[in-house]
Amino acid sequence: MKTCIKTGLTAMLMAATAVTTWAQDEAFPEGSVPNEHNIAGADYPRIGPDRRVHFKVHAPEAKNVEISFRGPMTKGDDGWWTLVSEGPEVVGPHYYTVKIDGVEVADPAGKPFFGMGRWVSVVEIPEDAAEADYYAMKNVPHGAVSRSAYYSDIRNEWRECLVYTPAEYDKNPDKKYPVLYLQHGMGENETSWSRQGKMNLIMDNLIAEGKAVPMIVVMDNGNIESFKMMPGETMADVHKRFGAQFPAILVNEIIPHIQANYRVKTDRDNRAMAGLSWGGHLTFETTLRNLDKFAHIGSFSGALFIDPAKLGEVYDGAFKDTEAFNRDVHTFFIGIGGEEHPERAHALSDALRAYGIENVYYESPGTAHEFLTWRRCLREFVPMLFK
Amino acid sequence: MKTCIKTGLTAMLMAATAVTTWAQDEAFPEGSVPNEHNIAGADYPRIGPDRRVHFKVHAPEAKNVEISFRGPMTKGDDGWWTLVSEGPEVVGPHYYTVKIDGVEVADPAGKPFFGMGRWVSVVEIPEDAAEADYYAMKNVPHGAVSRSAYYSDIRNEWRECLVYTPAEYDKNPDKKYPVLYLQHGMGENETSWSRQGKMNLIMDNLIAEGKAVPMIVVMDNGNIESFKMMPGETMADVHKRFGAQFPAILVNEIIPHIQANYRVKTDRDNRAMAGLSWGGHLTFETTLRNLDKFAHIGSFSGALFIDPAKLGEVYDGAFKDTEAFNRDVHTFFIGIGGEEHPERAHALSDALRAYGIENVYYESPGTAHEFLTWRRCLREFVPMLFK
Repeated sequence: MKTCIKTGLTAMLMAATAVTTWAQDEAFPEGSVPNEHNIAGADYPRIGPDRRVHFKVHAPEAKNVEISFRGPMTKGDDGWWTLVSEGPEVVGPHYYTVKIDGVEVADPAGKPFFGMGRWVSVVEIPEDAAEADYYAMKNVPHGAVSRSAYYSDIRNEWRECLVYTPAEYDKNPDKKYPVLYLQHGMGENETSWSRQGKMNLIMDNLIAEGKAVPMIVVMDNGNIESFKMMPGETMADVHKRFGAQFPAILVNEIIPHIQANYRVKTDRDNRAMAGLSWGGHLTFETTLRNLDKFAHIGSFSGALFIDPAKLGEVYDGAFKDTEAFNRDVHTFFIGIGGEEHPERAHALSDALRAYGIENVYYESPGTAHEFLTWRRCLREFVPMLFK
Repeated sequence: MKTCIKTGLTAMLMAATAVTTWAQDEAFPEGSVPNEHNIAGADYPRIGPDRRVHFKVHAPEAKNVEISFRGPMTKGDDGWWTLVSEGPEVVGPHYYTVKIDGVEVADPAGKPFFGMGRWVSVVEIPEDAAEADYYAMKNVPHGAVSRSAYYSDIRNEWRECLVYTPAEYDKNPDKKYPVLYLQHGMGENETSWSRQGKMNLIMDNLIAEGKAVPMIVVMDNGNIESFKMMPGETMADVHKRFGAQFPAILVNEIIPHIQANYRVKTDRDNRAMAGLSWGGHLTFETTLRNLDKFAHIGSFSGALFIDPAKLGEVYDGAFKDTEAFNRDVHTFFIGIGGEEHPERAHALSDALRAYGIENVYYESPGTAHEFLTWRRCLREFVPMLFK
């Protein structure tokens, strides 16, 4: 590196010129717009008015280039490989990678999102403006998402959580706020909710419209980023191990850190937790075994392993005293996407209700195990909290 | 995507298993440690005790794999390509990419850093602990880096700046803080100072030791991310155009946004600006034309285009009244790496002094046009401010 750049400015400029392969002088597909998650200057991927995605990758020397979940690209004489979605894609954000001669990488033309256990790319198929309004960047007061470091004795490492503070936070130096702890899913990390989830925009809009009370939202790393099955392990073993430290980290380390560094209310009525997919599982593991600390619980497409025939036994008997549960747990939310086999979540909600446990079931129409389901779950869940 | 993941948990687990290609059951090179910027679970790149880097990429179908600035990798029978640095690498953080059959991408095993006009990877060659102490994560109070959104009328778009608030910020709700505006270089963006620059750790440590006063640091996007020379343009044209909007954005939009949303002092004595490389150029363009607004100025390996024979004329005559300049500008810092041809920066500092303009010249020993130079410049510059 030293040799290459010690000539200073000229080399620096030349290195930067490499990026001109993002753009081409050509006519773009009619009515198409660049994917909102492209880096500055990158014209592809583009999304057509028919919701088909036009992918384009410059790889003159490659034998085979593919787009994950979609298939092989076609090589042109100019060294550019192209692929157009077969039909309209489902609205919302979708992970993708580019496979170059068998090596799967993030699209060099895209901004990075942590998903599928690594930094990948996201193509966002726009919804109708009315549908997308709740997560649109609008002219309302905007909160901030900050990184805050603390030492974990449990893991013997420095960690960072992301903390959303509402727009009014700095203007009310004497006010204390309730807290929602919000968890990502498997193969994701603490950045996923504010990046692919757009949680800050959803919160800004809900608060600006008076639908949600101003609150702090804390997002941390559940340590379920990379999945490995060890030799001799069963899936049940993995389930027990995966993210197993997180409930203790949250209760013993994250909550005290937040309470020491932010102006927050510390009673259970003002503490909520929710999570998506495996984060839903961790939410149940944390809250149902610590009902003295949490009064609001949300599962968004949660990986829930509850036998509806044993509701009185699971989670140390958390559901056994239905009257106490209904009195103390002010929000119990079970959300799922309509296209991800919602039957089991629906059946669990019904079984809980039949057993005597009040809960809210929400099914997101037409969405799968993806972030559009979870953005909507957040939109439905947050207005119920702290009222 | 929808088809692939609607089977839910099982498919999700299987997708995540793809990442097991990061790790191998093998003996690692003796005494080597994983690069600190690898993602969780990735064993390579590794850095040996001799400061040589061991790169390893799984690409059984590729014809040719290279590591940028270093050369071609060698393919093994197991489909893994390897490369070891020829000799000890220079200490500090270095950008790199992987080139797979001619396509240059970020290392899928690495965390993303924005540099060279796109998201790339960084290998960090550790310094001696004593040398690295000032940017080490230590048991001191830690500030937070937050994202804050505002609308730019000049660019007609929503933008986000990154704002470092010192650890004590939330504990002193009535205290106002001075502000340093800190700019990245060409091909970088608003994330670069807090990611590859570790500016938050440098500030935390300086403040904890009482060497710097607690201050807010604002990092924004200079819109010099992707460099393109237009048809018919000369380099001089590019110089004029590149980041040309930024001084107006900073003065008319960013500063008012910060003053409206953070508790900051608003007089010129409590406002500083510094930048690295092209950000140094933008710092001079902004501060020297607005000396009523800035009292502290720093150039870190700045791309400075000043003719030492015309000091009285440049920047609207900013240097002409040397007495006024020396009285009003409390800090004027010119830093450079000792290995990046420092002669021109040194000569400029001398010429300014001979002309009557007080300034501090700092040369970082043994470092090039890289972030180790700029971390050190920040360490030297910040203690001079607001005293």
